[in-house]
Amino acid sequence: MRIGIVGLGLIGGSLGLDLRQLGHQVFGVARRSSTGDRAVVRGAVDAASCDLKLLSPTEVIYICTPIAAIVPTLEELLPHLQAETIITDVGSVKVAVVEQATALGVNFVGGHPMAGTAQQGIEAAMSGLFCHAPYVLTPMADTPRATTETVAELARALGAIVYTCTPQAHDRAVARISHLPVMVSAALIDSCFREEEGTVLELAQRLASSGFRDTSRVGGGNPELGTMMARYNRRALLQTLADYRQSIAEICDYIEREDWQALEAHLETMNEKRSRFGFGRSN
Amino acid sequence: MRIGIVGLGLIGGSLGLDLRQLGHQVFGVARRSSTGDRAVVRGAVDAASCDLKLLSPTEVIYICTPIAAIVPTLEELLPHLQAETIITDVGSVKVAVVEQATALGVNFVGGHPMAGTAQQGIEAAMSGLFCHAPYVLTPMADTPRATTETVAELARALGAIVYTCTPQAHDRAVARISHLPVMVSAALIDSCFREEEGTVLELAQRLASSGFRDTSRVGGGNPELGTMMARYNRRALLQTLADYRQSIAEICDYIEREDWQALEAHLETMNEKRSRFGFGRSN
Repeated sequence: MRIGIVGLGLIGGSLGLDLRQLGHQVFGVARRSSTGDRAVVRGAVDAASCDLKLLSPTEVIYICTPIAAIVPTLEELLPHLQAETIITDVGSVKVAVVEQATALGVNFVGGHPMAGTAQQGIEAAMSGLFCHAPYVLTPMADTPRATTETVAELARALGAIVYTCTPQAHDRAVARISHLPVMVSAALIDSCFREEEGTVLELAQRLASSGFRDTSRVGGGNPELGTMMARYNRRALLQTLADYRQSIAEICDYIEREDWQALEAHLETMNEKRSRFGFGRSN
Repeated sequence: MRIGIVGLGLIGGSLGLDLRQLGHQVFGVARRSSTGDRAVVRGAVDAASCDLKLLSPTEVIYICTPIAAIVPTLEELLPHLQAETIITDVGSVKVAVVEQATALGVNFVGGHPMAGTAQQGIEAAMSGLFCHAPYVLTPMADTPRATTETVAELARALGAIVYTCTPQAHDRAVARISHLPVMVSAALIDSCFREEEGTVLELAQRLASSGFRDTSRVGGGNPELGTMMARYNRRALLQTLADYRQSIAEICDYIEREDWQALEAHLETMNEKRSRFGFGRSN
């Protein structure tokens, strides 16, 4: 197959490495020509350019830019597309992207490969990145079945586990398990520093160990990424934050009322519920 | 030195192993004689009994029972103590324990070795558990300096890093870095299940990965321990929860108002503040 990739960072580059390995012909477009050159050298693409025109002979195009650039990229791609070209993206929110993409009348299905590393950019690209990772596809009611199936087949060929759901279900699910934890965790760091400067704050910083480290990890992560999540998944995130504030209020209530039996039963339930995620029980 | 240990679990047993290694004579008291027998076999104590009378010849006594049993144990110990015997504990909250212990007129200094493993009980006891770990001592204004210094010297001999502060400062610091994370993390699990049963909840459970796993870890931990923290450090924990609710409200406000610049600046600050804890920056 002739495959196009726009955006040759960690995800785009890793897709290219695996797709070429599978025998596809891969054409890459990057904003900077130096990125495209590196992608060719690293074997992530057969040819690279800064001009989207390079992609006109392709059958499937992956848009692997940051979320904010997905729809503008699609618009720029329009004059270069054949009618049957399938377009997909790899953004971590789907409603905002899919609605606009569909409005443009292109043959589009939203995608979200849930893989990554701490590094970014073409140098971080690696083969096997998507192996055993979830890959969510979010067709609309009127998305041609063949479009979804083609992208699903490619994802399976990468070794990914494909899930299919509506863009709305995707965004609500990731709000709960990916976007909310960032806000919960950032608020933990913030609240710690509401302690006035002095002995207690110093002591807290010295004594903090694995519990604080793990619970604060994602809140101390990439600020730009956290902001994008909130911006493009605002509605679902606000709903989960409202639920979360109720959950915190309930715990506060047990403690205020000194209802230790209820608190222990609640923590017991949380221990059991967390075990349903298949991480294994907490220590 | 002749040293007594009441409660031969992970902490008591590990203290015994190291203290005997350092040449001290260690006497252990457990509720069950089988525990004492195992402690002798494992080399954690020289002699064991279910009777606190065994400890009458000792110079320093560590109370290593669960928090709720510390003060009752002290009261039972009273008839067996020499006037100069130093008593300390290993409980993870200090104000509630230290105030009552001091009221009993014993030669007491509160202690909190911040070490542990996922396992409990005498079989989990290990040498070197306290090495490089913080060990907080919480003397009152009228605690004899020699009492604190004796327990500090023993802690340093175990390889621990000794901090000294008031019981109040200790409890406020651990509320922020140890007890609050448990409640924040439990509320995250709870809020996830406020999603109605169905596609989204199922998808959330399948897609959850390291971010949710780490942020929910301590909230899915030992329910009894979480309840004890809240019960015995109630006032400090409620204060940190109030601060935390303000921190969450502030983040919600940015998102409601779509003030992405403010949110990104806030997350930037959290990234920087977390780095002050010495875990290294988040990925």
